[in-house]
Amino acid sequence: MSYPCISEQLDDVEGAREEGRRKIDWARQHMPILAALREEFEDLRPFEGQRIAMAMHVEAKTAALTETLAAGGADVAITGCNPLSTHDDVSAALDANENITSYAKRGVDDEAYYEAIEATIDLDPTITVDDGGDLVFRIHEEHPDLVDGIIGGCEETTTGVHRLRAMDRDGALDYPVFAVNDTPMKRLFDNVHGTGESALANIAMTTNLSYAGKTVVVAGFGDCGRGVAKKAAGQNAHVVVTEVDPRRALEAHMEGYEVLPMVEAAEKGDVFITVTGNRDVVSREHFERMQDGVLLANAGHFDVEVNLDDLSDLAADVREVRDGVMEYELDDGRRLNVLAEGRLVNLAGPLGLGHPVEVMDQSFGVQAVCVRELVAAHSGGLRDRLAETLRERLGRADRLEAVGEDTYGPGLHAVPDALDREVATVKLDAEGIDIDDLSDEQTEYMDDWRHGT
Amino acid sequence: MSYPCISEQLDDVEGAREEGRRKIDWARQHMPILAALREEFEDLRPFEGQRIAMAMHVEAKTAALTETLAAGGADVAITGCNPLSTHDDVSAALDANENITSYAKRGVDDEAYYEAIEATIDLDPTITVDDGGDLVFRIHEEHPDLVDGIIGGCEETTTGVHRLRAMDRDGALDYPVFAVNDTPMKRLFDNVHGTGESALANIAMTTNLSYAGKTVVVAGFGDCGRGVAKKAAGQNAHVVVTEVDPRRALEAHMEGYEVLPMVEAAEKGDVFITVTGNRDVVSREHFERMQDGVLLANAGHFDVEVNLDDLSDLAADVREVRDGVMEYELDDGRRLNVLAEGRLVNLAGPLGLGHPVEVMDQSFGVQAVCVRELVAAHSGGLRDRLAETLRERLGRADRLEAVGEDTYGPGLHAVPDALDREVATVKLDAEGIDIDDLSDEQTEYMDDWRHGT
Amino acid sequence: MSYPCISEQLDDVEGAREEGRRKIDWARQHMPILAALREEFEDLRPFEGQRIAMAMHVEAKTAALTETLAAGGADVAITGCNPLSTHDDVSAALDANENITSYAKRGVDDEAYYEAIEATIDLDPTITVDDGGDLVFRIHEEHPDLVDGIIGGCEETTTGVHRLRAMDRDGALDYPVFAVNDTPMKRLFDNVHGTGESALANIAMTTNLSYAGKTVVVAGFGDCGRGVAKKAAGQNAHVVVTEVDPRRALEAHMEGYEVLPMVEAAEKGDVFITVTGNRDVVSREHFERMQDGVLLANAGHFDVEVNLDDLSDLAADVREVRDGVMEYELDDGRRLNVLAEGRLVNLAGPLGLGHPVEVMDQSFGVQAVCVRELVAAHSGGLRDRLAETLRERLGRADRLEAVGEDTYGPGLHAVPDALDREVATVKLDAEGIDIDDLSDEQTEYMDDWRHGT
Amino acid sequence: MSYPCISEQLDDVEGAREEGRRKIDWARQHMPILAALREEFEDLRPFEGQRIAMAMHVEAKTAALTETLAAGGADVAITGCNPLSTHDDVSAALDANENITSYAKRGVDDEAYYEAIEATIDLDPTITVDDGGDLVFRIHEEHPDLVDGIIGGCEETTTGVHRLRAMDRDGALDYPVFAVNDTPMKRLFDNVHGTGESALANIAMTTNLSYAGKTVVVAGFGDCGRGVAKKAAGQNAHVVVTEVDPRRALEAHMEGYEVLPMVEAAEKGDVFITVTGNRDVVSREHFERMQDGVLLANAGHFDVEVNLDDLSDLAADVREVRDGVMEYELDDGRRLNVLAEGRLVNLAGPLGLGHPVEVMDQSFGVQAVCVRELVAAHSGGLRDRLAETLRERLGRADRLEAVGEDTYGPGLHAVPDALDREVATVKLDAEGIDIDDLSDEQTEYMDDWRHGT
Repeated sequence: MSYPCISEQLDDVEGAREEGRRKIDWARQHMPILAALREEFEDLRPFEGQRIAMAMHVEAKTAALTETLAAGGADVAITGCNPLSTHDDVSAALDANENITSYAKRGVDDEAYYEAIEATIDLDPTITVDDGGDLVFRIHEEHPDLVDGIIGGCEETTTGVHRLRAMDRDGALDYPVFAVNDTPMKRLFDNVHGTGESALANIAMTTNLSYAGKTVVVAGFGDCGRGVAKKAAGQNAHVVVTEVDPRRALEAHMEGYEVLPMVEAAEKGDVFITVTGNRDVVSREHFERMQDGVLLANAGHFDVEVNLDDLSDLAADVREVRDGVMEYELDDGRRLNVLAEGRLVNLAGPLGLGHPVEVMDQSFGVQAVCVRELVAAHSGGLRDRLAETLRERLGRADRLEAVGEDTYGPGLHAVPDALDREVATVKLDAEGIDIDDLSDEQTEYMDDWRHGT
Repeated sequence: MSYPCISEQLDDVEGAREEGRRKIDWARQHMPILAALREEFEDLRPFEGQRIAMAMHVEAKTAALTETLAAGGADVAITGCNPLSTHDDVSAALDANENITSYAKRGVDDEAYYEAIEATIDLDPTITVDDGGDLVFRIHEEHPDLVDGIIGGCEETTTGVHRLRAMDRDGALDYPVFAVNDTPMKRLFDNVHGTGESALANIAMTTNLSYAGKTVVVAGFGDCGRGVAKKAAGQNAHVVVTEVDPRRALEAHMEGYEVLPMVEAAEKGDVFITVTGNRDVVSREHFERMQDGVLLANAGHFDVEVNLDDLSDLAADVREVRDGVMEYELDDGRRLNVLAEGRLVNLAGPLGLGHPVEVMDQSFGVQAVCVRELVAAHSGGLRDRLAETLRERLGRADRLEAVGEDTYGPGLHAVPDALDREVATVKLDAEGIDIDDLSDEQTEYMDDWRHGT
Repeated sequence: MSYPCISEQLDDVEGAREEGRRKIDWARQHMPILAALREEFEDLRPFEGQRIAMAMHVEAKTAALTETLAAGGADVAITGCNPLSTHDDVSAALDANENITSYAKRGVDDEAYYEAIEATIDLDPTITVDDGGDLVFRIHEEHPDLVDGIIGGCEETTTGVHRLRAMDRDGALDYPVFAVNDTPMKRLFDNVHGTGESALANIAMTTNLSYAGKTVVVAGFGDCGRGVAKKAAGQNAHVVVTEVDPRRALEAHMEGYEVLPMVEAAEKGDVFITVTGNRDVVSREHFERMQDGVLLANAGHFDVEVNLDDLSDLAADVREVRDGVMEYELDDGRRLNVLAEGRLVNLAGPLGLGHPVEVMDQSFGVQAVCVRELVAAHSGGLRDRLAETLRERLGRADRLEAVGEDTYGPGLHAVPDALDREVATVKLDAEGIDIDDLSDEQTEYMDDWRHGT
Repeated sequence: MSYPCISEQLDDVEGAREEGRRKIDWARQHMPILAALREEFEDLRPFEGQRIAMAMHVEAKTAALTETLAAGGADVAITGCNPLSTHDDVSAALDANENITSYAKRGVDDEAYYEAIEATIDLDPTITVDDGGDLVFRIHEEHPDLVDGIIGGCEETTTGVHRLRAMDRDGALDYPVFAVNDTPMKRLFDNVHGTGESALANIAMTTNLSYAGKTVVVAGFGDCGRGVAKKAAGQNAHVVVTEVDPRRALEAHMEGYEVLPMVEAAEKGDVFITVTGNRDVVSREHFERMQDGVLLANAGHFDVEVNLDDLSDLAADVREVRDGVMEYELDDGRRLNVLAEGRLVNLAGPLGLGHPVEVMDQSFGVQAVCVRELVAAHSGGLRDRLAETLRERLGRADRLEAVGEDTYGPGLHAVPDALDREVATVKLDAEGIDIDDLSDEQTEYMDDWRHGT
C-alpha cells in the first residue's frame, strides 16, 4: 500500500487548503522572479513529460517554486526535508494541484519521514530537487536502476553540496546535479541581506529589546557576518567584530568596526551573534567574562557555535524567561540569555519564519532556471524555443548569452554563470529597473583591454 | 462591595503570578535606570506614607516602574488605561506585592474599566500617575474633595498632556502635574530609536519581507520620521520622505533622502509608513497610484493617518492574508496590504510588544524622579537627604544641579531640566560610561561666552 | 581725502576684475537661493534709495550676496571684516559694479583696516550688514548721529551676536539688528553639513591621509560635532565622542558611537577634532597619552580648543612637516601633528576655502530676506507688493505666512520664523522639489490637536 | 657619458633634499607596514648583493618603498614611470641615500625619459620593480642578455599586468614577475577606500561644493564604484548608480541605491563620477539632458570615460572657471563643468596627491614581501632565516603559512596568498589589533566540513 498523501492524512482538508493557499498567495505576491518564470513556463511548457521529485522545507516560499515547476508542465511529488519544518496547510494546498502530490507532514517519525521520501521516488522521477541531498542519496543507494531515467538534479544547501562533492570525488554521483547553493545570486543576497535582516529582527522581536547604543559582537566577518554587522550598525549599535582570518579582520577594521579577540569582546558585548560556520566560538572563557544580561544568538548554520555544554557546566540555574530565551544564571548571579537554544535564530526562534520572501525568490529563481537548463540540455529543441522566447520577452538579445553546455555529464556542476545572470535580469525587469547596454565600441574596448593589444 | 483586585478574579492565580513574574524580571533585567533608582529608593524610602494611584498599560515594563515606586515605601493601587493592553499575569504578579494592589484585567467592559479606576481612587491617593489623563480627569470631576490631599501627578503621553493643557488653560487643573511626555529624555530616544526600530522590526516579522532594495516611503520627518527613515536606510532601503513643512523637507533632502509629494511617492513606494500625527496622509488619490503588493503601516499615534474609509470604498474585496495583514484588492487587481488595521504597527500588530524595554526605562526613569520631586517639593527634608545621597552615589557633585522649585503650584509643569539630566546621568553610570567634567576655567570661559564681557 | 577703493589700489585692475568675476560666477552658479532672490529683487527693486554698508569676508560667496543686494537697487559700500580673508580680485570685481564700492584689500594694517570701515560709513548707510559687529559698534561709538538714519542691520556670526546681545542688555543698541546667526536655516545646515564636510575634506587633503579604519575622536556633540561624527563614520572611521553634557553624551552613545572621557580617548585616537566652543579641550594630560603620529585639528570657532601652550611646553622640537601641519616632537619621540595652528581647520588651512558654497547660499539667503524685511517694515507699500509677487511666483499662497512685525524697535531681534521658512521654500523650489500642502481638514485636525477640544 | 642623476641636475640640491626628506618622513610616519618590514629587513639584510631597478611615480610614498628595499641591503636605481608625476625634491632626497641612485626628473622630454630608464638598467639589475611595465619591456627588447641575471620582478598596475599577460601568453616573458596589482590587499583597500575617499575629497576641495543633498551619479559598481557610492552616501548625497552588468546593478539596488540607465541619470545628477574602466560612459546623449552647473569627474584609470570630443562639439564656449575646472557652455546656456580634464580626479586635479598614504602602505607592503620572496625562492637559506625571524617577531607561528613555491619559472605569477595574508597580519600588528586563533578542534572541524564527511 502506498504512503498516503497529505490530503489523506488531515481531518479538515478543505480548511487546511484554504489556510495554506492564503500563505502561498502571500509569498507569491512578493516573489517577482518566480512570477516571471511561471509566466514563461506557462507559455513554453518546457517540463511537459518531466516528473520531478522534491524534498524540501514544505512552507509557503518553497510551495511557490513547486507551483512554478508544475506550471511548466511537470508532474511533481514533494515531501519535507526535515520533519519539523513542514506546514501541513501549505502541504495540503499544494496537494490540491492536480499536477502535484505532497506527502509532507509535520512531526512525523523517522520511519514515516523516509517512507514519504520513497513515495516521491515512486514517481520514477526524471529530475530531483533537493535540500540536503536526501533524494540523490537514497536513489543512488536504494534505487540505482532509476538513475538512467534521471536527466539531472538541483541542490539548494551548503550541506547537500558538501555531501554531493564527496560523492563526486569518489566517482559515485551518477547523474548531473547543479550546486545551486554556490551561485552569486543566492550567496550575495541570501547571506548579506537575508541573514542580516532576519537575524536582527528575530532577536529584537523575541526579546523586545533595541539595538541603539548596544554593543553587538559579530563573530565572523564572512558574507553573513558582514550583513549582520552592517545592519546592526544601521540600527545604531556599536559593532565589534571577531575573526580568525587576518585579511577579513583588516577589512572589518577598515570598515570602521572595532576588531577584538573574543576574550576581550566578551567583556564589552551586550549581544553576541555567531556567524562563523565553526564550533565553540563562544565558550567557557568567554562566558566567564560576560556582563549580566547579555544575549547569545547564533545565525550560523549549525547549533555548535555557542558552546552550550560549557554554559550548562557554569550555570547554577537554567530557566526559560521568555519564549525562545533560556536564561543561564551563573554562580555569581550573572545571567546569560541564550536565544533559540543556540540554533539558527532566524529560523528556530519562536517567531522563526526563515529568510525573507524576496531572498528565497532569488534562490528559487536559480532553481527554476536550473531545472529548465537540465531539460534544455537534454532536448535541443527546447533551447531554441527558449532562446527565441527570451529574446522576445527580454528585448535584450545582446545580454542573453549562450547558456551552458550541450550536455552535462554525471557529477556536481556549477550553475552556468549565464543562468545566474539571467535571474538577475529577470529580477531587474520585475522591479522595473532599466540598465545600460554596452555599445559595440565599448564591448570592443573592454575586450581589447582584457585580451591584449 | 469594593471592586475585586486581579488576584480575586483569576482561576490560577499562582500560575499567573509566576508567568507575570517571569515577564517582569525580563524587563527589569534590561532597565538599568529603574534598577539604580530602585536601589536609591530602597535606601532613602522617600515615599513612606505616600499613596500612589496609577492608570497605565499594565504590562511588564510598567510593572517595573510600579515596583520601583513601591520599593520607595509607597502604597500603590494600579489599573489599566486601556482594556486591551493589560497582561493579566503581570497584573497578578504586581498584586502579589504587599504594597501594591492591581485591579487591571484584560478585556473588561466599560463599566468594569471605570470601576477599576474608581478602585484606585479609593486609595485616597497623594500622587497620581497617568497615561492618558483618566485619573486626573475623574478625580477633578467626581472627587474634587480629594484634590486637597494630592501633592501632584505625572502624565506619560501626548494625549494626556494635551487634555491637561486644556484644563490648565481653563484654570481647571487643581494640583500640579508634570508633563513627562515632553522631556528630552523621553522624546529624543523614544521617538527616534524606539519608534524607528520597533516599527521596522514589527513590519518585517509580520510580513516575512525584507527592506534591502525596497523603496520605503516615510510620511513625516519629525523625530519619529527621522528615526524610521534612518533605520530603514540602515537596512538598505531606498527612503523617500514626504512632508508639509519646507524646512523639514529641506532637512530630509540634505540628509540624502528623496523628497516627493505623496502623490508621486505613491507610485514609487513598496512600503509606506505614516508618522505625521495628522489624518488622511495616505488617501484615495494615493491608493489609486500605488503598485500591486505594497504595505501600508502607521507608526503615528492615532489610526487616522491611512484613510481606511477611502480604501474600503475603492476595494472590490478585503481579506486577511496573514495575521495582522488585511489585503484590499482593487477593481484592477492591485492588492494593497494594510498592517495592524492602520493602528500603531509596533503596538497593535500581532506580535506587538510596544516600545523596546530600554526606551521605556528612560521614560519611566523620568516618571520615577518626577514622583520623587513632587514629594521632595512637599517636604524639604527629603530634598536634603536626597542631595546628599546623590552626591555620594554619583560622585559628581558638580553635575548635580539644584533641582526644581521649592513648591509647584496647581497646573501643568514642565519637568525641571535638572531631573531630566539626572536620568541621563544615571543611565550613563549604569552603562559604565564616564564623561568629562568642565574645569573651573572652562566653566568660566563658557559663562563669559554666553553672558558677555 | 577719502580712502581709496580697491580699483585705485591695484596695478592690474582689469586682470583682477576678470579673475574675481570668474570666482564670483562660480559661486553664483551654485547659489540657487540668491539667484532666485536676485530675480525677485531685480523685478521689485525693493532697495531703491537704500544705502547699505557691509563689513564681511570679501570673497566669492559674500560677493554673490553683495551683488544680490545691489540688484535690488541699493547702493552698497563694502569692506573686509578681517584683513587676511579678503580676495583682492573679488574685491575688484565687486568694485566694477556701478552700485558697489569696495574698499577691501588683503593684508592691510590696522589703521587702513579701520579707515576702510570708516569709508563704508561715509556712505551714510540706511542699513548695515556685519560679520562680527564692527560696523554696528563703530557707528554707535563714533557716529551716533547716523543712527537716526539707519533702519536696521543684520549680523552673521555667533561672535557678533554675542557682542550685540551685550549691547542690547545694556540698552546701548540703538537700532534694530537681526541675529541671522541663530536661524534654523543657518544653524542646521551650516553646522551639521558645512562644518562636517569641509573640516574632514580639508584634513584629508592637507595630510593625504584617509579615514577608513582610523579612530576619529570628536570632542563635543553639538550640531557641529554631530556633523563631523556622522560624516567621519560615513568615511568608515571608528568614531569616539567626548562630552561634558550627560544628555548629549547619551545621545552619542545611542547613535552607536563610543563615548569616553578625553583622557581615555587620547590613548585611542588617530585624529582629534575639537568642536566644543570651549577652551583647553585637548591639553597636557591628553598629549601625554597620545599615540605617535596623531592629527590634532580644530573645527570650533576660536583657536583655544587645542592648548598649544601646553603642547609647546612638552615639545622637544617643533617643525612644519607639510603645508599647514606643525609637528610637535615630544621628548620620548612621539610626534603630534597640529593642523592649521589650531585655528578653524576648514578656513585657516593651506587649502582653506571656508564653508561650501551651498551652505553659504542658505545663510546669505536669510541675510537677503532680512534686509528686505527691514525695508518692508519701514515702508508698508513694499510689503504688499512683495506679498503679491511671492504669491504669484511661489504659487503657494497658503504657505506664505504673514511676515514679521509692523516695525522693529531698537535692539537685537530674532529672525522671524516665516522669513527663515521662506528661504527653505525658495531652496526647495530652486532644487525642483515639490512637497505636500495641508488640506483644510488636515489643518483643522492639527489645530484641534494643538489647542484642545 | 652616463645619464646624470637628479643631484647633478638641480641647482639647489641641499634645499631640494631637505624638502624631499620632509615629504618622505611624513609618508613614513603613516606607513606602519613598511616600517615593520624595514625593521625586519634591517635585521635580516635579505637583499645583500641584490641590484634593484625601479620605474615608478617618484613621490613620497614610493620613496618609502625604495628606502625600505635599500634598508634590506639592496643597491637601487630608480626613475619615473611618467614624466609628470616626479617630485624633484623627493627624487633628490632618495639620491642622497648611498645605496640609491635616482634619475627621475619632472617634465623631461621623451628622449630623456627613456635615457633615464636606460640608466637604471645600467645597474645590471637582479630584480625589477615596475609601474606600467616599462622596465620589463625594455629589458626584453633591448637587453635580452640581462635576463639571465634577473631573478624576478614585480608589477604594480592593472595596465602593466595587462601588458605582461600578453607577453606571457606569447611565451615572451623570460623571467618571473609577480602581479602585485591583483592581490586582495591591494584591490580591496586601494579600490574601495582609496579611490572612494580621495576622489570625493578632491572634488569637494577643487570646487568648494558639498555633497549633502546632492545627487551623485556613480557610473560603474565595481570595487571602486562601491567605494565612491558608499562614501558619497556617507556624506549625505543621494546616490544613483549606472551599470551594464545585471548582477552588479541588482547589488546596487539591494544596497538601497537608485539604479538608472545613464540617459535617465543624466537628468537627475548634480555630480557624475565615472569608474567603469570603459570609454564614452558619459557622452553626447547624456550631455544633452544634464542640468546647468553639473560636475563631471572621472575616477577610472584612463581619461576616456567622459567623452570630451562630444562635449567640445556641443559647446559654444569653453573656459577655465577655477583651477582644475573647465566649464563647457552649451548653446542653450547650460554649463557643464569638467574636472581635471577628465583624467583621474584624485591624481590629476590641481590638489592631486593620489591615493592616501595608508592605502599605498598596503600596496607597497605587498611589493616589499614579493621582492623578498623572489630572493628567498632563489636562495633557500634566506627562507629559513626568514621563517624563524617571523615566527619570533609575530609570535604567531600557527598563522605563518608555508610560503610560495621553491622556485618561480619565467612568466606572470599571482602573488602567493600567504604573502598577501602576511601583510594583513603585519598591518594588524602595527595597529595593535589582536585577533583570535583557531583551536585544534576548530581547525579540525573546518577541515572536516570542507573535505569530507
